[in-house]
Amino acid sequence: MSPRPTSLLLVHGFWFGSWCWSEVIARVAGAGRVVQAVDLAAHGLRARRPACLAKRPFDPEELATEVSPVSGLGLDEAGELLVSQIQRLAQEGQPVTVVAHSMGGAVVTRAVQEVPELVAHAVYLAAFMPGSGVPAGEYAQSPENADSLVAQVVRGDPAVIGALRIDLASADDGYRRQLRAAFFDDVDHDAAEAAIGLLTPDSPLAMQLDSTRLTSDGWGSVPRTYVMCEQDWALRPAVQRRLIAEADAAFPENPTSVEVLDSSHSPFLSMPDRVADILAKLD
Amino acid sequence: MSPRPTSLLLVHGFWFGSWCWSEVIARVAGAGRVVQAVDLAAHGLRARRPACLAKRPFDPEELATEVSPVSGLGLDEAGELLVSQIQRLAQEGQPVTVVAHSMGGAVVTRAVQEVPELVAHAVYLAAFMPGSGVPAGEYAQSPENADSLVAQVVRGDPAVIGALRIDLASADDGYRRQLRAAFFDDVDHDAAEAAIGLLTPDSPLAMQLDSTRLTSDGWGSVPRTYVMCEQDWALRPAVQRRLIAEADAAFPENPTSVEVLDSSHSPFLSMPDRVADILAKLD
Repeated sequence: MSPRPTSLLLVHGFWFGSWCWSEVIARVAGAGRVVQAVDLAAHGLRARRPACLAKRPFDPEELATEVSPVSGLGLDEAGELLVSQIQRLAQEGQPVTVVAHSMGGAVVTRAVQEVPELVAHAVYLAAFMPGSGVPAGEYAQSPENADSLVAQVVRGDPAVIGALRIDLASADDGYRRQLRAAFFDDVDHDAAEAAIGLLTPDSPLAMQLDSTRLTSDGWGSVPRTYVMCEQDWALRPAVQRRLIAEADAAFPENPTSVEVLDSSHSPFLSMPDRVADILAKLD
Repeated sequence: MSPRPTSLLLVHGFWFGSWCWSEVIARVAGAGRVVQAVDLAAHGLRARRPACLAKRPFDPEELATEVSPVSGLGLDEAGELLVSQIQRLAQEGQPVTVVAHSMGGAVVTRAVQEVPELVAHAVYLAAFMPGSGVPAGEYAQSPENADSLVAQVVRGDPAVIGALRIDLASADDGYRRQLRAAFFDDVDHDAAEAAIGLLTPDSPLAMQLDSTRLTSDGWGSVPRTYVMCEQDWALRPAVQRRLIAEADAAFPENPTSVEVLDSSHSPFLSMPDRVADILAKLD
């Protein structure tokens, strides 16, 4: 009998939740592997919604100015939660494979730096993979990401409300098209609309402003794979390439393995077979 | 080495989605077991939301009258999807344990009747476990369920709009209190509000009107456990007891094992440890 493959922990990004992985999980669990998707701090079942979303009539001014209930929640708190989730899955200290999407990458990087002995492999799927001491937000705001569509769907001033807020119940067809283009450009229309219905409206800005100091015996010691999404209009491919290049320059003795998908930001919805195939190879 | 425990398939009820099981999954996967939560037809990533929910200003008359995009979706379609999900998880024909919550029970019963050889154990958690040829709706409307709080939160006439519709973005504090009391009475307030943000607004009435013919060599042949929720204000304990009594009268050679939780309709949120403990015993 071959050794049991590592258990898989799947970590979503800003606005998403554990629900986004269900089609990938069906394929991975169907192959007999232990797999679990978690909600990040302030997301999914841990989301805290601004009060203005449960007011009628809706007031766009409130949406743009109400301070977020998750304002100030940073990488310390998010990382601590993720470390506890890794510890729970890593039964008897068996290291697990952790997969990060998008801003989940900054949290995974923090957790891996803290418990590298519990992580067999770190996988970044169209994810922020920030350098030592660099906030994820620096990549989001970088020239390489200038034509990302995310900035167009964020409402209000994140620095004022403490969150990157999107308007999930918008009645504006143009806005809904932008949301779909930013996150779900190659996803079936109905599935994309269902996904929008599940998004968390507020993601905490502090998680993008915080950073993690990386060491060779910490994050730098863990094998990593980057899965590029070439048609990604949220985290542009040029940023993804820069993240890989910087990581390889900082930790040349542990270079990034790279896979490429011709997908939008949400390959777990548009091509779950391909995502599952990549994860199967990391047994 | 002891034989590998069965894989677990977790099936939510009306309005819920795969996301509701995440705390239970953390515990089950942390014990090394293969586990997967799925979205039912018309729910979660398969939800179809009425157009009136993305209109501003909000029109309560439209909410009460717009025909649901999931109108007419019945047990045939829902059962077919669940059978395919069971088949995928039952690798090499190894039977799986299927856990149903609430209206997920009617779909699980249909699927178990169709592929009993793929189901090692059927678990009903505060779930409809309808008798042969009896629509789940008959139990929902029964005298034993007369003081259920669900009827108070359903908007519009289900027979007209084809769905049981709830108003997730209601600005009415009394209505939100009723929602929490119906589904999340013992769940932390913030977690309950986050869960409400993830619910699917429309669940198809047809799934409650359809029924399944049960046979001794089909559904009746599969071991089953009923987990009663004694403080359930959605599916009242009196109905749960009636479901168990009727199943045992119909299939006396295969009696129901019964467990009892002192919980609301959502023990996966209020007492995930207890739910995971019960599932662990069914290895």
